[in-house]
Amino acid sequence: MSIDLAVIPGDGIGPEVIAEALKVLRAVTGPAGVELELTEYALGAQHWLETGETLSDETLVKLRRHDAILFGAVGAAPGDTRIPSGLIERELLLKIRFALDHFVNLRPAKIYPGVPSPLAAPGKVDFVVVREGTEGPYVGNGGVLRKGTDQEVANELSVNTAFGVQRVVRDAFRRAALTDRKKLTYVHKHNVLVHSGHLWKRTVEAVAADFPEVAVDYLHVDAATIFFVTDPGRFDVIVTDNLFGDILTDLAAAVTGGIGLAASGNLNMDRTAPSMFEPVHGSAPDIAGQQKADPTAAILSAALLLDHLELPELAAKINAAVTADVAERGQLGVRPTSAIGDAIAARLG
Amino acid sequence: MSIDLAVIPGDGIGPEVIAEALKVLRAVTGPAGVELELTEYALGAQHWLETGETLSDETLVKLRRHDAILFGAVGAAPGDTRIPSGLIERELLLKIRFALDHFVNLRPAKIYPGVPSPLAAPGKVDFVVVREGTEGPYVGNGGVLRKGTDQEVANELSVNTAFGVQRVVRDAFRRAALTDRKKLTYVHKHNVLVHSGHLWKRTVEAVAADFPEVAVDYLHVDAATIFFVTDPGRFDVIVTDNLFGDILTDLAAAVTGGIGLAASGNLNMDRTAPSMFEPVHGSAPDIAGQQKADPTAAILSAALLLDHLELPELAAKINAAVTADVAERGQLGVRPTSAIGDAIAARLG
Ligand SMILES: CC(C)[C@H](C(=O)O)[C@@H](O)C(=O)O
Ligand SMILES: CC(C)[C@H](C(=O)O)[C@@H](O)C(=O)O
Repeated sequence: MSIDLAVIPGDGIGPEVIAEALKVLRAVTGPAGVELELTEYALGAQHWLETGETLSDETLVKLRRHDAILFGAVGAAPGDTRIPSGLIERELLLKIRFALDHFVNLRPAKIYPGVPSPLAAPGKVDFVVVREGTEGPYVGNGGVLRKGTDQEVANELSVNTAFGVQRVVRDAFRRAALTDRKKLTYVHKHNVLVHSGHLWKRTVEAVAADFPEVAVDYLHVDAATIFFVTDPGRFDVIVTDNLFGDILTDLAAAVTGGIGLAASGNLNMDRTAPSMFEPVHGSAPDIAGQQKADPTAAILSAALLLDHLELPELAAKINAAVTADVAERGQLGVRPTSAIGDAIAARLG
Repeated sequence: MSIDLAVIPGDGIGPEVIAEALKVLRAVTGPAGVELELTEYALGAQHWLETGETLSDETLVKLRRHDAILFGAVGAAPGDTRIPSGLIERELLLKIRFALDHFVNLRPAKIYPGVPSPLAAPGKVDFVVVREGTEGPYVGNGGVLRKGTDQEVANELSVNTAFGVQRVVRDAFRRAALTDRKKLTYVHKHNVLVHSGHLWKRTVEAVAADFPEVAVDYLHVDAATIFFVTDPGRFDVIVTDNLFGDILTDLAAAVTGGIGLAASGNLNMDRTAPSMFEPVHGSAPDIAGQQKADPTAAILSAALLLDHLELPELAAKINAAVTADVAERGQLGVRPTSAIGDAIAARLG
């Protein structure tokens, strides 16, 4: 078997963490007789500065041919005024998510033994957020009137469809049905966002009929943030919209010990296009090129990739190696990016 | 001097916590020779069940005549299917905020000495969120097409105007200019919500020119939640939109020791209509009528009320009494709602 992988290292710390993820991928696939075929794509803020390309149609056609995409991080340095704010994020990262129909943005949140949480008494935390990835306020359907005047009106349109909500809710129920606790929490703000919120509510209620074994729970997004810090152990599977999922998964990363461990999969569960795997963190230009970044999130994203490509045993090996490494971190002190990758890869030898 | 106060106790624990807020208000205004004139309005879920009124035009006309409004909490019990979800919240609470032009939703967040935080090392936390109160995704301008079918499309429109953003941003700068740290953080998601986000960005940059002494900082909302748990002490004044403010202030309440202490003022800073003061917490029907609710958030909201009515010395007295009471709480054990009100009122005697 072989995996035909597109690699987009991106900007900032992206290339550093992706190098470690590839190191670990090689270490786990080699002995299993799985071949890795890599094609690197130079995309991101730096590439845009050099060429003016964010993501061309030709590149997108090429990306579609791969089995999966491993993505580092993109984005301009905050002070860099040459790059319009958010351009690379929208025209590259979000464009891929939408074009390749990544409707399930899967973001696990877990407190690993040995990893300190900013919470005084977090308890056992191990949940997964199923964030919708192709709708909501992310559709880019807003507009502006009388820009720059005192009469300016700026609108953002959140578009939500039965089709889009059904497929992500069904996916979340399927995942909840496979956990020990079989608990699904859906998060929205249906007391204010009535139209989208009630579509979510009705959809969850309808799909629930097919999963009688799953216990369903609802939280307004504001209340959900409270439980994230007072009782994160209560969550098992969370399903929510694109924007709420964005917010909640950064918060989840923070309470489980930091964005350095937060992995994600942008999944096309219909497999009509390759899925994409990326750490939740950004390009962190302030520490780029200094071997200071934690590559664990990228490495765990590679595990999600293997899982999605139906190599769950290999994914489990990476997860076990990461678990062992993070358990030791207290004693290991500060390590360069590559040393963390080396240590995790060595455990797979 | 006298204060003509409208009181809306509402549902659930609303009446219990408002009784204590009034007790404390009386204790502080009496000795100062300030007369309190109270008019109670029976509004909320229970009132709707009995009369069908959420908030009539006649009642709204009456509310407009008062100097200020003290609001408890409203909302149906989660299981109560007689009341459409969110109806009371939208047709009463949000209707008042919009009709009386409460464009500044002021929500202080502070860790009081003696109050345990769920954070292991919160540090000194004392900031205020200036949440926009009359625009954004709260305008109720969404709609639904082909409801209940597989082709349903549910839209939510976030409306943002230069007028609305300017006035709240200017208010936040004014507040930041008065603090010791003179620091303003504006929170949005302008890499994705480009139209509204850039209106906010341009507005902050323009208003900043009038406040050279204020240091300005920007955070995406997702990143802001990380700092709320890893370094909440970094914040001084935060200004943000209606929905982000809703989410961040519940999170702020959680990290500063709970929603039992979170007060808010819905302020019409142009004073063209009365402002409204309410605890951030909801009606908590599960503990209603049992003297289990913490009235401190309602009491602190009464202090915000006095402050807005230009009685800052009386507000400071309540704040000092609350600070002393919460410092003692560890020793005091569980106390009924009225005992907390009694203790705080007694300190004002
Ligand atoms: C970079 C940004 C567009 C992106 C998002 O908002 O989805 C990021 O925050 C994430 O969570 O992957
Ligand atoms: C009850 C609800 C409509 C309200 C809001 O969303 O503003 C509440 O959560 C708040 O924060 O005051």
